[in-house]
Amino acid sequence: MTKVEGIDGCELFELMERLYPICRSITGDGVRHTLEILRQMVPLEVHEVPSGTQVLDWTVPDEWNIRDAWIKDSSGRRVVDFCESNLHVVNYSEPVRQRISKDELQQHLHSLPEHPDWIPYRTSYYARTWGFCLSENQRQELTEDEYEVCIDSHLAPGKLTYGELFLPGERSEEILFSSHICHPSLANDNLSGIVLAVFLARHLAGVPRRWSYRFLFAPGTIGAITWLAKNRETATRIKGGLTLVCLGDREGLTYKRTFAGNEEIDRIVKQALYDTEKSHEIIDFFPDGYDERQYNSPGFRLPIGSLMRGRHGQFPEYHTSADNLNFVSPDQLLASWECLHRIIFILENNQHYRNRFPYGEPQLGKKGVYQKIEAGNQELKLAILWVLNLADGKHSLLDTAERSKLPYRLIQNAADILLRQGLLEKLTPI
Amino acid sequence: MTKVEGIDGCELFELMERLYPICRSITGDGVRHTLEILRQMVPLEVHEVPSGTQVLDWTVPDEWNIRDAWIKDSSGRRVVDFCESNLHVVNYSEPVRQRISKDELQQHLHSLPEHPDWIPYRTSYYARTWGFCLSENQRQELTEDEYEVCIDSHLAPGKLTYGELFLPGERSEEILFSSHICHPSLANDNLSGIVLAVFLARHLAGVPRRWSYRFLFAPGTIGAITWLAKNRETATRIKGGLTLVCLGDREGLTYKRTFAGNEEIDRIVKQALYDTEKSHEIIDFFPDGYDERQYNSPGFRLPIGSLMRGRHGQFPEYHTSADNLNFVSPDQLLASWECLHRIIFILENNQHYRNRFPYGEPQLGKKGVYQKIEAGNQELKLAILWVLNLADGKHSLLDTAERSKLPYRLIQNAADILLRQGLLEKLTPI
Amino acid sequence: MTKVEGIDGCELFELMERLYPICRSITGDGVRHTLEILRQMVPLEVHEVPSGTQVLDWTVPDEWNIRDAWIKDSSGRRVVDFCESNLHVVNYSEPVRQRISKDELQQHLHSLPEHPDWIPYRTSYYARTWGFCLSENQRQELTEDEYEVCIDSHLAPGKLTYGELFLPGERSEEILFSSHICHPSLANDNLSGIVLAVFLARHLAGVPRRWSYRFLFAPGTIGAITWLAKNRETATRIKGGLTLVCLGDREGLTYKRTFAGNEEIDRIVKQALYDTEKSHEIIDFFPDGYDERQYNSPGFRLPIGSLMRGRHGQFPEYHTSADNLNFVSPDQLLASWECLHRIIFILENNQHYRNRFPYGEPQLGKKGVYQKIEAGNQELKLAILWVLNLADGKHSLLDTAERSKLPYRLIQNAADILLRQGLLEKLTPI
Repeated sequence: MTKVEGIDGCELFELMERLYPICRSITGDGVRHTLEILRQMVPLEVHEVPSGTQVLDWTVPDEWNIRDAWIKDSSGRRVVDFCESNLHVVNYSEPVRQRISKDELQQHLHSLPEHPDWIPYRTSYYARTWGFCLSENQRQELTEDEYEVCIDSHLAPGKLTYGELFLPGERSEEILFSSHICHPSLANDNLSGIVLAVFLARHLAGVPRRWSYRFLFAPGTIGAITWLAKNRETATRIKGGLTLVCLGDREGLTYKRTFAGNEEIDRIVKQALYDTEKSHEIIDFFPDGYDERQYNSPGFRLPIGSLMRGRHGQFPEYHTSADNLNFVSPDQLLASWECLHRIIFILENNQHYRNRFPYGEPQLGKKGVYQKIEAGNQELKLAILWVLNLADGKHSLLDTAERSKLPYRLIQNAADILLRQGLLEKLTPI
Repeated sequence: MTKVEGIDGCELFELMERLYPICRSITGDGVRHTLEILRQMVPLEVHEVPSGTQVLDWTVPDEWNIRDAWIKDSSGRRVVDFCESNLHVVNYSEPVRQRISKDELQQHLHSLPEHPDWIPYRTSYYARTWGFCLSENQRQELTEDEYEVCIDSHLAPGKLTYGELFLPGERSEEILFSSHICHPSLANDNLSGIVLAVFLARHLAGVPRRWSYRFLFAPGTIGAITWLAKNRETATRIKGGLTLVCLGDREGLTYKRTFAGNEEIDRIVKQALYDTEKSHEIIDFFPDGYDERQYNSPGFRLPIGSLMRGRHGQFPEYHTSADNLNFVSPDQLLASWECLHRIIFILENNQHYRNRFPYGEPQLGKKGVYQKIEAGNQELKLAILWVLNLADGKHSLLDTAERSKLPYRLIQNAADILLRQGLLEKLTPI
Repeated sequence: MTKVEGIDGCELFELMERLYPICRSITGDGVRHTLEILRQMVPLEVHEVPSGTQVLDWTVPDEWNIRDAWIKDSSGRRVVDFCESNLHVVNYSEPVRQRISKDELQQHLHSLPEHPDWIPYRTSYYARTWGFCLSENQRQELTEDEYEVCIDSHLAPGKLTYGELFLPGERSEEILFSSHICHPSLANDNLSGIVLAVFLARHLAGVPRRWSYRFLFAPGTIGAITWLAKNRETATRIKGGLTLVCLGDREGLTYKRTFAGNEEIDRIVKQALYDTEKSHEIIDFFPDGYDERQYNSPGFRLPIGSLMRGRHGQFPEYHTSADNLNFVSPDQLLASWECLHRIIFILENNQHYRNRFPYGEPQLGKKGVYQKIEAGNQELKLAILWVLNLADGKHSLLDTAERSKLPYRLIQNAADILLRQGLLEKLTPI
């Protein structure tokens, strides 16, 4: 099994398998249970915010929990059964138990005629209603005149729950990774993002850190808004970050830029993608999608981009039962992991250096530099010339990688050799 | 008949038909007659400037008028006849009446061998001469040894005439529309521009105006120069404008940028073209063409672009009898009208707004915004998110349209809804 | 024979023929002899710097000279003979004379299996060793068990030699042309560059000069470093320049930009290439190649680009015996000359002018401008309009050529006419 930075794709996938069955929503025990499992890997702090709390322009809603739900035919057979898939119930459905005519029932059903085998995923957080989602095939089989429906849910004042991990570093500026944690049994969206975030958190927890890191596992929209409302001061220390979403499917990686589009995080992710993922795309910010919407809102303008494979609303399996464990693969999770690791590598290492022999080229032979290079490694030789040329105090190693079109790691390798041989000095970070 | 903003293409075309027969030049009764017809639509002020007046580096020339002109053969038959086409006489020809040998006559003839049916259009405003323009076919039929020629013109001190309409607005900054009015029976160049300008003037005269508008109907070059010479102070209030030329032919619209190239008018026309004309081109300023040359000269540098279809000197029918009423169509005139109307719409409406709930996204449901949107109108929903995100006081609605790549009207619609629902406030214009 | 600016391609080629047989290196009599021949054309100053002198981070090496070298077989026949090609000896080989087994000899041989007829060119300036270069075919014929080898070289403290010509101009700012002079019998690399530089120097010596010019004929790397070490103050006056290398082969011209990439020299060379060489390329600076590496090092950052045809290390004949006089042609040398001449023309003539009639267009007819233009020369008319429009004191003629996309000479011609007719005034250079 291929490992990248100590991790193989199966480890990532296995955590997804554990989390997959849980029925999550924007509040409730599904989120609590999920965070408990994540706490087995990293010491997440779990926050609970009471229903009714004003957060920015929003109000924390009542808490929703569900035990069971079904539609029974006249024989008492469950023709739609929550126990088979938690997608069968419209998320945040209010409780109901009644006999209902088929015609009236139709008003409460959701299916996808264009994908007759798939169950859609629907929510109604802020408008009270109830409903069932089912495959078009199932719907066609509802031929009786009357059915009994039951949604054994509980919708009442409670708490909104989210998890947070703060890893202090040498510097107080923070990097934020944010993953929404509110979807029930959907794999790519967003167990993939959650799993990558928690593995990244575990990795960072175990190494020295230049920057401080913050991981947020919170329900989409209301969770990010709640965190922002309670952390205005902290938010000012965020120098960059990413929402991690849909990172396990077959697509190449896509990076969605921050609002400004030319922040350090934008440049670093671009370089990491260039270095690790042959086929990738970089797209401009737009105010739709996941929680980057909230972070980049005009009042905050936090430089948070978004890393994804399949795009919000753009793949057929999006928000359907087809976004299941078959839709994601260990290999793609691992490739996402590699890119994230590279992003961290650049974030942590990128520095300004000064060439101690800036007049002409130094005589590298007599300084023992060539002895550190395998014969024929022309790329490393070129990287060394680039680092020397750009080590004028105005250019970072990332600038050097960008300008030379060489991989960042090669540039870092060249800088490390030159530093050891006494040709460079590290500048005090600004 | 399709109408766009209350106008159909036939109305535009019919005014062209009325103006087509008149023999115009840079001075004389043809211009006066043309302005009289335009005055039936809008209260143009008619200015007359005496011959000999110094205007910038130029001098207003003598006035030219013509009653008749012909070439007669030995039988007395008019083989070339001004009454058939006013293009037959070189514009500004001095009077002549004489018998002349065929060879000598040839020195005074102009034809187009490559288009043997077409009569060219020629002028000689500043070098006194006389001449006839005729089709190559006609020329080939001149087989007699001698002809009688007559040009019954009058070239003497008089006046240069131009029309001007000023429509004051809330703001004293002016938008200038300028159309040259000196060409005889040529349809596209520039009755099309004149007709669109006068309809636009009539439209603007009847509505509240944020900006002031000025319309100029003047002979090419000397007319623009005369106006500039007499209006140096006024010119400083011009914040943008267009020369309107060749707007009826079959080509897509072309916009020629101002000297600076990134003025507000450049951006607005680009957006209007993007929104209304599938196939269009935008080209950089160059110091040839129509009166934008004068407005953009280094002493003035007025931000005046040029809107056209066929380009100055670039279509075969240019300055020939083939630029006739068959060469232009009501449909194309109407499409030009639509684009002009859109330009005005953006000019008048573009503003800066501030999002009153800039921290995170406001909860649009509870604010009644979603109720204002037809279900499924995803584009309007996206426009609303864009407007909220960019309403940070630094971005105008035009900025928002540009960045979102959505049509300006959709952005305006979103802003109007948000303003009504109390989510935006209009900033005092700078 | 076509002449360009008084020079034909054969003159250039003939000087290459004279210089071709000399065995040059980074020090020694080959360089002295070469400079002597160049001194017959221009009064070069010859500098000699003792071995052991510290220059920047480098030390001037011992001087190398060679009289003869060979490999003899058992019959005493020279199977490899320095007299046939000076490439046969590894440049800077220490002296050797001994019988040697074939196996041991192989350690000292260099050939090119992929080009079995070609002799490679190899050097070992800073690591003492000896060796022979030979064709792969010759190598295959070495079937005896033992050979006698002789390298009759002399490697001992001496001098490093380089030539320099300074041509003062009206202004003290300098333009530097630098050509490496250290290669033995290689034609393109770099007799072509040397020959073009010396012809350019002779041309400039004979004409009035706005800028000062400096020509440097020095061994690669160590020569440029030596000059920089001894001329730190002078270097600050260099406002631009070029390394001239590989200018005679069949490729189109390539310009390699300066470090900053948007210096005046970058813009001028781009324009000259646009005007003279249909098929050319412009590439970004990179810190490998020829002596532009040293000039653009962080301590100096001199705006020195590089003009070439075949690129450093990129053509198969590079550093082999196939880079001989057949590899270069008089025509390509002449085309390189034309481009260089155009670069000088722009450098010397580019100025800022002010339009004395900036309000509208001046009436060119009455100012006698049209009389200076051949009828039908529409391009010159357009150039005149461009010059008038951009002569606002903020734009140079080069700006005008760039913006108009017209050739620089046409723009200069237009400016000259306008200046003579009193429409322009030259601004005092900044």
